[in-house]
Amino acid sequence: MTQDPLIIFTPSGKRGRFPVGTPILTAARQLGVDLDSVCGGRGICSKCQVAPSFGDFPKHGVTVSETALSEWNAVEERYDRVRGLKEGRRLGCQATLQGDAVIDVPPESQVHRQVVRKAASARPITMDPATRLVLIEVQEPDMHEPSGDLERVQDALREQWQIENVTAGLPVLRKLQPALRKGEWKVSVALHTPANSDKTMILDVWPSLHEGGLYGLAIDLGSTTIAAHLCDLVTGEVRTSSGLMNPQIRFGEDLMSRVSYVMMNPGGDVEMTNAVREAINTLASEIATDAEIDANLIMETVIVCNPVMHHLFLGIDPVELGQAPFALATSGSLTLPARDLDLTALNAEAQVYLLPCIAGHVGADAAAVALSEAPNQSEDLVLVVDVGTNAEILLGNKEKVLACSSPTGPAFEGAQISSGQRAAPGAIERIEIDPDTKEPRFRIIGSDLWSDDPGFAEATAVTGVTGICGSGIIEAVAEMRMAGLLDPSGLIGSAEQTGTARAEPEGRTNAYLIHDGSADGGPRITVTQGDVRAIQLAKSALYAGARLLMDQLEVDRVDRVVLAGAFGAHISPKHAMVLGMIPDAPLDKVTSAGNAAGHGARIALCNRTARQKIEQTVGEIHKIETAVEPKFQEHFVNANAIPHATDPFPDLAKVAPLPDVHFGASGAQSGSNGGGRRRRRRA
Amino acid sequence: MTQDPLIIFTPSGKRGRFPVGTPILTAARQLGVDLDSVCGGRGICSKCQVAPSFGDFPKHGVTVSETALSEWNAVEERYDRVRGLKEGRRLGCQATLQGDAVIDVPPESQVHRQVVRKAASARPITMDPATRLVLIEVQEPDMHEPSGDLERVQDALREQWQIENVTAGLPVLRKLQPALRKGEWKVSVALHTPANSDKTMILDVWPSLHEGGLYGLAIDLGSTTIAAHLCDLVTGEVRTSSGLMNPQIRFGEDLMSRVSYVMMNPGGDVEMTNAVREAINTLASEIATDAEIDANLIMETVIVCNPVMHHLFLGIDPVELGQAPFALATSGSLTLPARDLDLTALNAEAQVYLLPCIAGHVGADAAAVALSEAPNQSEDLVLVVDVGTNAEILLGNKEKVLACSSPTGPAFEGAQISSGQRAAPGAIERIEIDPDTKEPRFRIIGSDLWSDDPGFAEATAVTGVTGICGSGIIEAVAEMRMAGLLDPSGLIGSAEQTGTARAEPEGRTNAYLIHDGSADGGPRITVTQGDVRAIQLAKSALYAGARLLMDQLEVDRVDRVVLAGAFGAHISPKHAMVLGMIPDAPLDKVTSAGNAAGHGARIALCNRTARQKIEQTVGEIHKIETAVEPKFQEHFVNANAIPHATDPFPDLAKVAPLPDVHFGASGAQSGSNGGGRRRRRRA
Repeated sequence: MTQDPLIIFTPSGKRGRFPVGTPILTAARQLGVDLDSVCGGRGICSKCQVAPSFGDFPKHGVTVSETALSEWNAVEERYDRVRGLKEGRRLGCQATLQGDAVIDVPPESQVHRQVVRKAASARPITMDPATRLVLIEVQEPDMHEPSGDLERVQDALREQWQIENVTAGLPVLRKLQPALRKGEWKVSVALHTPANSDKTMILDVWPSLHEGGLYGLAIDLGSTTIAAHLCDLVTGEVRTSSGLMNPQIRFGEDLMSRVSYVMMNPGGDVEMTNAVREAINTLASEIATDAEIDANLIMETVIVCNPVMHHLFLGIDPVELGQAPFALATSGSLTLPARDLDLTALNAEAQVYLLPCIAGHVGADAAAVALSEAPNQSEDLVLVVDVGTNAEILLGNKEKVLACSSPTGPAFEGAQISSGQRAAPGAIERIEIDPDTKEPRFRIIGSDLWSDDPGFAEATAVTGVTGICGSGIIEAVAEMRMAGLLDPSGLIGSAEQTGTARAEPEGRTNAYLIHDGSADGGPRITVTQGDVRAIQLAKSALYAGARLLMDQLEVDRVDRVVLAGAFGAHISPKHAMVLGMIPDAPLDKVTSAGNAAGHGARIALCNRTARQKIEQTVGEIHKIETAVEPKFQEHFVNANAIPHATDPFPDLAKVAPLPDVHFGASGAQSGSNGGGRRRRRRA
Repeated sequence: MTQDPLIIFTPSGKRGRFPVGTPILTAARQLGVDLDSVCGGRGICSKCQVAPSFGDFPKHGVTVSETALSEWNAVEERYDRVRGLKEGRRLGCQATLQGDAVIDVPPESQVHRQVVRKAASARPITMDPATRLVLIEVQEPDMHEPSGDLERVQDALREQWQIENVTAGLPVLRKLQPALRKGEWKVSVALHTPANSDKTMILDVWPSLHEGGLYGLAIDLGSTTIAAHLCDLVTGEVRTSSGLMNPQIRFGEDLMSRVSYVMMNPGGDVEMTNAVREAINTLASEIATDAEIDANLIMETVIVCNPVMHHLFLGIDPVELGQAPFALATSGSLTLPARDLDLTALNAEAQVYLLPCIAGHVGADAAAVALSEAPNQSEDLVLVVDVGTNAEILLGNKEKVLACSSPTGPAFEGAQISSGQRAAPGAIERIEIDPDTKEPRFRIIGSDLWSDDPGFAEATAVTGVTGICGSGIIEAVAEMRMAGLLDPSGLIGSAEQTGTARAEPEGRTNAYLIHDGSADGGPRITVTQGDVRAIQLAKSALYAGARLLMDQLEVDRVDRVVLAGAFGAHISPKHAMVLGMIPDAPLDKVTSAGNAAGHGARIALCNRTARQKIEQTVGEIHKIETAVEPKFQEHFVNANAIPHATDPFPDLAKVAPLPDVHFGASGAQSGSNGGGRRRRRRA
């Protein structure tokens, strides 16, 4: 008796013997090999492409001849003619086994393909989205055995894809009959299976094979900015990212002023709810236009946000979040129809997933950061700081993770800063000040040139220099301190004290001129004393929160720091440490994670198991409520100086030796660059 | 060792021994006795009232003394003082067992109480609604162990009521926090558990004990009329019934003209969808006002309707239902949020349940009739006819049930009839014509007097005599035939031929004057030749459908006939048989079931298990498509005469010996009352 041919799949190494004539896709399925298919083996979708290998495979003990697979058939030839098949590729549903074979499944043919993240702390995302596309062939109706078109679609999904418990809402019921008839009883359906559910919902239906793709939006809904990534739900790729200001700003810059607005203005929550939902619709439409896709193909949205935004977005009065015990209406994750949230720009059946909140002040955004940065999987003690209008702070390792939030205010995002603006072309994002000449050079978003590089004016002519964004203001204040323009208490020296005309009087205090565009009708961009104070308040709050968690863990140092935030990728670790935003740590252990909350949202969008995982993780995080901890106030006050006066910063000296200047409030007390006393700073 | 006291519950007879001091409610629960409680034993809701019995119970072998239960306690005293406790009643959660006891659970204290139906074919409804009320006590929030208010509500439901998998939508999330605080952490929640689901949804929440009740609407959505019952979801009682015309009539009187309207007018389905949804909102508001309840307390609606109404109500283009193979978009039952159907008059989270459809022409209304009349449980062969614009016909017994529908048109509902009107005060509903004098007497809706009774004019002065309703026109035509005013072909004789001046010429044909109110500015009410023709078409369609099913079962006779319909209760079996609406059957075996579709809707509203049952039954019914059966046309043509000419009516002669008149189309041919030939009628 001759044995059936052997098939070996790479890279999985799975192997088995199958009768001659078995389609490769069939063998793959039976062996549990991760080989994609939308059309279920009908030679339509081309997702099951495989690359046969020929020759000797000593590792596997086989030699494979060119005749291991069947000849190209008519389906493959037509497919190649019409759409082109890559050299060496076969359609797994058409090619059949004729002899021993070694078959490679290229990454793009794997259902659970991995999407590698660009950032340094990259962990790849495994594609396993809640929404996916399948093609089915549906029985035609028979008036003598009447059943609904939906019921025959359900039968097809059960028989052809082993998917049970399928439902469809009204928008799909409305489209189903024309789609079936136009597709001659073949339709593509977008299926959504929420986390923790055995029910599947048809979100949309198209005649025959739908080739327009399926998309999802990962939204980081911040108090000040709303950032969104448009993700391809098949490849996991980010197609476009975009952002806009949160229009709720007109009701109050920080969260507590918005809560107060509601308390003072009955119905104010409804205004704010409408404003933010409208903004998300605008953002979704814009991002779809940018990516040149139909916004109706956005099937899912994952939203992460702080608790007040969470409630305001859901239309829940946030008043309980403004007073102890800061009770959330709901802390669990939510899956809701987008239309119940007035997100009409998306698909009519689009689903919205909100990550769980950790506590009344520590929201779904912090949960998303935890999902992205996984402190609960860290061997060493990591401090994760998500910088925004409210800072979310996580501290921990595999043993234990603590979380709190700290009200930093909008200064880090460029709001409440005299020349502040959202990170957009024209905004200063990098700045250096020469310690000797006190002259600045800077870079703006949209150009790689520094302001003193030749051709800068021409290269930036379109946008001009419009203001300073969040990362820019952090660098500006830190550079001012390093250049001796600021004393440790945060006072800006006068022209006389600093020896530069860029230090200009402004009322009873001084300001530092970074750029004067007034000759060309542009703005004069300065850092005022008020700006420095706003940054000091913000960084003290951030620092105090981190210290509070360290107190709880009874540690004085952390092994590493991860800076995250909508503009987190742009914060310079050195400047953050000079400013005293974060506790002391070796500079090479301070990394930027970019928009970790947004990335966490993207993970939840691309992988439904991640949703279950974060729901569990959130339950295990220990929550610290800063608002009622007396130590928080103490840390806050002590952290005001740059660097602050009470805590040890052994590593900071290696980073930036700070000049020991001191400017009196009246400007009467003089300072110098080199000499004078160092205020309680330890080397 | 002394034994624990014995407790015996009546009427269930369940018994057991429990330690002294066990509350009666606790004992009842452990024994599985059906004793209601909303507050879970907190002495608040009074649902667990029981009636202890004292004395000798030889059947049970016990003698019960007055000290078998604990003394009245403070809770019972307060309850009695504030709301009054019926003589001999105790609160089951307060009274504790002290000795052997016999405890009666009165019907109103049973959760699964039975609601007895008034109609003759009554089968009681066992209360087990999908929506119910419970009171819970919720943990207060703790900022050091933060969790959402909803999550603590879920905990309370799990711990206090053993209810798992509870979710809440946005309208409840919005109300939850104020309700919890106002109720001092005690709230009542309305819980909805759909059929075939292990998930429970909170539909609404109220501070402390909600005493406003919970209601449901059972709606029979007909092509011509919409009828609704407002049911108390606790007692099952019908609080109010009401109806209005289906406003879609302006788009076409029968279903096929509405389907044509859509085909001719793109967007026409949207107009019709909006019209019918608006009508249901109006009806719900009116019915709530009538019953003096808040329409927000309507938590559920069960809707039954034919397939075209089903699709138009759901917003699905009905065009496929207008052509073979008459494919439904969906045939299964549906549970949908009322707000997705724009039913804004109800509770914000109200749920709509639509019964399954049987086939493209046999809808959820027929399923409801099957649920109400249960032909599948009948020992004898029963024909159930639901008379409406489309007649649904069921024929069968325990062995097999067949179903079809027949396009009778709106004549039976008083539409397309010259003096026709909806069944409302002022409409003629009963009529008798003296065979000798040819003089009519009649009764109108709203008065028990006949028109020749003394005081009729005064009693009916408010409404006047306004027209003829569906049951009235059936009687009128049948009486005209019996009085010799009509010949078997349906022709109305002239004054000369009939010998009465009430037979008036109308164009080239004749009409019969029933009532002349013109002297008082009222209408002249006549039955025209066109009216008779419309009724003939309608009854022929109905008869042909019934015959078709009989052919399929190969039977010539049925054992009994059930007449149902929105106005079914008012049809006189004798007149229906004279008219030839239904196949021949012993008169005492022809019964009226009233609005069986509406009653089926009410059963589904009050008992969620019934929903599962009808979904199964519908799958077992054999569907016959009249539109493509050549025999249907044949039966239809043959059934045109009154009585028709081809089929045997042995029982009819016992009911009404019909005069053998014959009027020529020109009126030239004379007829007589007594003599002449009988046209193919067999005695």
